[in-house]
Amino acid sequence: MAEQPNPRIEIISTGTEILQGLYPDTNAQWLSRQLAALGLTVAGHAAVGDSLEDLARLLDGVSRRCDLVIISGGLGPTVDDVNRYAIARTYGCELVEDDAAVQQIRDRFARRGLPFVESNRVQALVPRGARVLYNEWGTAPGFILEDCEGRATLIALPGPPRELQPMFDRWVRPWLLERYKPDTQLATLTLHTMDLPESQINAAIADLFHADPDVYVGLLAAGGKVDIRLTARGRDGMTIERKLGDFRRRIETRIGAESIYGCDDATLESVVADLLRTHNLHIAVAESCTGGMIASRLTNVAGASSFLLEGFVTYSNESKTARLGVDPDLIAQHGAVSRPVARAMAEGVLRVSGADLGLAVTGIAGPTGGTPEKPVGLVFVGLAWGNDSTVIERRFLGNRNENRAYSTNVALDLVRRYLLHRGGKSQDCQSG
Amino acid sequence: MAEQPNPRIEIISTGTEILQGLYPDTNAQWLSRQLAALGLTVAGHAAVGDSLEDLARLLDGVSRRCDLVIISGGLGPTVDDVNRYAIARTYGCELVEDDAAVQQIRDRFARRGLPFVESNRVQALVPRGARVLYNEWGTAPGFILEDCEGRATLIALPGPPRELQPMFDRWVRPWLLERYKPDTQLATLTLHTMDLPESQINAAIADLFHADPDVYVGLLAAGGKVDIRLTARGRDGMTIERKLGDFRRRIETRIGAESIYGCDDATLESVVADLLRTHNLHIAVAESCTGGMIASRLTNVAGASSFLLEGFVTYSNESKTARLGVDPDLIAQHGAVSRPVARAMAEGVLRVSGADLGLAVTGIAGPTGGTPEKPVGLVFVGLAWGNDSTVIERRFLGNRNENRAYSTNVALDLVRRYLLHRGGKSQDCQSG
Repeated sequence: MAEQPNPRIEIISTGTEILQGLYPDTNAQWLSRQLAALGLTVAGHAAVGDSLEDLARLLDGVSRRCDLVIISGGLGPTVDDVNRYAIARTYGCELVEDDAAVQQIRDRFARRGLPFVESNRVQALVPRGARVLYNEWGTAPGFILEDCEGRATLIALPGPPRELQPMFDRWVRPWLLERYKPDTQLATLTLHTMDLPESQINAAIADLFHADPDVYVGLLAAGGKVDIRLTARGRDGMTIERKLGDFRRRIETRIGAESIYGCDDATLESVVADLLRTHNLHIAVAESCTGGMIASRLTNVAGASSFLLEGFVTYSNESKTARLGVDPDLIAQHGAVSRPVARAMAEGVLRVSGADLGLAVTGIAGPTGGTPEKPVGLVFVGLAWGNDSTVIERRFLGNRNENRAYSTNVALDLVRRYLLHRGGKSQDCQSG
Repeated sequence: MAEQPNPRIEIISTGTEILQGLYPDTNAQWLSRQLAALGLTVAGHAAVGDSLEDLARLLDGVSRRCDLVIISGGLGPTVDDVNRYAIARTYGCELVEDDAAVQQIRDRFARRGLPFVESNRVQALVPRGARVLYNEWGTAPGFILEDCEGRATLIALPGPPRELQPMFDRWVRPWLLERYKPDTQLATLTLHTMDLPESQINAAIADLFHADPDVYVGLLAAGGKVDIRLTARGRDGMTIERKLGDFRRRIETRIGAESIYGCDDATLESVVADLLRTHNLHIAVAESCTGGMIASRLTNVAGASSFLLEGFVTYSNESKTARLGVDPDLIAQHGAVSRPVARAMAEGVLRVSGADLGLAVTGIAGPTGGTPEKPVGLVFVGLAWGNDSTVIERRFLGNRNENRAYSTNVALDLVRRYLLHRGGKSQDCQSG
């Protein structure tokens, strides 16, 4: 029996440990991702403790306003496993023992060489008329309860992810496909941007948020980077890809293609690595406040030896002079955190290493070391090549580690923009 | 105004990306943990998308049945930030611009040298009569809305954890303590261990899991480290601290105090930094497969210049020779990933830098580069001091970045154990 194609779906997780904050609610996340992949939209999550009253009350509201509710947890044999009772009360149905489920539980105990404890029989109790979802990965079966007047269809699954996930794959996904025959597909495209404030991106693309009811546009800011997330819905893959490509081009026009450093799984370091390899160039790095973070990010990329020559963590002034040949007088005159020293570090690491590009960072990460003229968060990034060099200045407002991470992102992005102008072009995404 | 000591509290998170399963709801988890630590019980979690209608409907139900509701997210400047409007509609109150908040937003833009975009003013809109929670860590203020007839007290906080968490610490926790004066207290103590398998720890302390109904014991494994998490409940702080101290001593006896590298907020790098400073010793680092990660971890610690002289990322063989004086014949004979080369790198960085300790890592992080004799995950860590040195060998089974992180942890732990035996002693925790 196929139903309306856009059912209202909510997910309920049960377990006092979730409400105590001992674990994040990973079942709700996992189920949501599976449903999204099927083109089904989740309208809400909820979590309650192991309380019959709380669950029954929650379920009463949810089951009246939804088409489908998926509940995880609370099907075990202990006194805090209340889900089957709360469901029976809310749906006004009787619980009956499922013979096959009892046998499966007995067999499971036998296989493990354990005596069957009678209290385990309660796990075979299911609402009369429900379809039983047998559990090969644990003890308690789940069930699907349909055709209750005025109530949502209900799917109950056990809580442990190692049972819930294979049971979803085995029983629930096929049922959902049969029931709702989702005639729409979903695809996402994430555009990663650097160096543009979220508010500026928002202003530039404000009209796109509601330009197409089938394309959802979201922004997510973290670490000085902003992700623009596009989710498109449509009848077939080609239509969706075309829409995503169209939105992408409109966004590029508004904020500049160069501000988008990559798509989906691309990282700043993977994009820089690709550009360096394309140009057959080698880089060397000299780091003060970032203290190895830039080199570490570049060596995240497998095969980093093909583009990274070496790195220096020159945290002290002595080290800047001994390793990079920075003139001590320059440091005395301008301070270690200054435009001239950033340039001298970049030129120094270029000369010492024999690389094609020398990248250097010096800054005040904090929490101490700031002055009115040179506050915490002040950072200079230098890049040297051939007989030329450039230095950019930034002022960050984060804590120590955020400032270091931001500095690393800005440094990698400087290399990316330099390489783009040297003759490369913006990274292409599959969906572009 | 103190109220009933056991208020009914629910937490609402907003963001379509949560319902799409892109992220777990970590704000609900974090807030729940903070409330539990205050002895306050959370009755439910809920998450909705960035939809004014959905949030208003959810909030209508929740605010009628609760004493307190905490909502995170949706306070930014973009069109999908709907929380202030949904709250105003549900609570029937007007939104007004808070002058101090506008000024704070303007100042923030000015400090970063960015032009103020007028669309940011909406972030200073708060319900009339609400107490404004100023945000020093981001742009949008939060607020507390009280005394609405028939509605729960409502606390609205911004969604980014780096804003939500300090704002909770600064504004919400003191307010909760004043308002509800909880009569049981909760305290936690987390013991961080290195180099012991979770199963071995579990077997050694199995009886402690149920030794005291007021002490919850949990294990959490990540990155080659296992955390033992103790949560104790009681009427007064002294009883709780005594219980935690007692459990800690029993665990130390079972697994060895040296396996516990620190407690609570201590990190391997902070413990190593403290030991180096206590002994007034300086370290220098030479990294191959970790590629800057060790230096970066050490410079996570503020004031790292007092114990870290410098670092070398010697990814190539040439760099190992040029920077550290490693004999090319040694590399040719044993390979770059070998016990003799790890030792030569450690001795080399000690000599070149003039530090008291030289730490070096060479290994095969993967995914490529492995051979039957030297598989992916093989790592050698060398430590040199005075005229002596040691090398340890490990074989990890993770992916590239896991292997690099494990190697970094093992390297830092080697320094820690060396410094303990040199005359220091195990780190003390406040609760110990």
